[in-house]
Amino acid sequence: MLRDEERTYLLETIREIPDFPKPGIRFKDITTLLNNAKAFTLLMDHLQERYEPMDLDFVAGIESRGFIFAAALATRLGIGFVPVRKKGKLPYTTVGEKYALEYGVDEVEIHIDAFHQKPGARVLLVDDLIATGGTAQAAARLIKRVGANLVEALFIIELPSLGGRERLEREAPVYSVLECV
Amino acid sequence: MLRDEERTYLLETIREIPDFPKPGIRFKDITTLLNNAKAFTLLMDHLQERYEPMDLDFVAGIESRGFIFAAALATRLGIGFVPVRKKGKLPYTTVGEKYALEYGVDEVEIHIDAFHQKPGARVLLVDDLIATGGTAQAAARLIKRVGANLVEALFIIELPSLGGRERLEREAPVYSVLECV
Repeated sequence: MLRDEERTYLLETIREIPDFPKPGIRFKDITTLLNNAKAFTLLMDHLQERYEPMDLDFVAGIESRGFIFAAALATRLGIGFVPVRKKGKLPYTTVGEKYALEYGVDEVEIHIDAFHQKPGARVLLVDDLIATGGTAQAAARLIKRVGANLVEALFIIELPSLGGRERLEREAPVYSVLECV
Repeated sequence: MLRDEERTYLLETIREIPDFPKPGIRFKDITTLLNNAKAFTLLMDHLQERYEPMDLDFVAGIESRGFIFAAALATRLGIGFVPVRKKGKLPYTTVGEKYALEYGVDEVEIHIDAFHQKPGARVLLVDDLIATGGTAQAAARLIKRVGANLVEALFIIELPSLGGRERLEREAPVYSVLECV
């Protein structure tokens, strides 16, 4: 478990960038957490402690910031890593799932045999941040569509006011390390 | 050190995809190494053993497959991770470096304060694959331009016939785990 003062410390390592990528958005810059060895190690120690007892088989990360935390956790746990990528990036046969954007539609894909080594694989889905939860919900559905068991969805940062948790909890339990406004 | 049979085993976990992303290219699909817990762990054990004595301060990964190996290695070594990204993706003040493509020009960026916590920081640059070495050379120059000491460039796969090593060795020593044709 993270202590309150550890959570406060981690929050303080995240840099807020006003008006990125567009006016009105206060972007949460996690590069200042990642390049801080003490903070990154504290975070990964916490995640390893939380997920070691859950008997996971794979950690799936959403392109591209999700790759960072998912791959680090997978190697901490000694299990496999699976990428969920934007349409057209994965080279083998894929399954895709569309999701709505503010204007338009986007799509994420997973390899059809991503978890084939282990029928009924226990999978953790990881991204850096949950806002409205659209991408994560599409990724969650992909994981189930290729036959795996989605145990939980993990986010380093949650923006609770945007309702992503409620949306994603239709698919799997949700855990976030830090809440930001 | 990897034994010959371990290297052969890792090579066999890489899937070749003909004509991706365009006709004539045999794409090296590393997702089949990453979702294989035994192979991914063997690879990361080898990298941890190699880099632990080098007293590194940061691992820098090139977007987006480079993020996977760089973040996994950074947390194995207990040090910080720094992303090198495509133009326009990093939210804070950046330094950019252009490089030539077959047709046209691309650009990678790094945060100007990426290594500010440690003057003269010892940095390892990581990507999944080195072909002609254009992206990696631009990334190497960025690391030096923001004041860090580039100790080595690491690639999981090298395509030796494309000359990337010769080009990149002008910037830093090069180490690759596996060679493919």
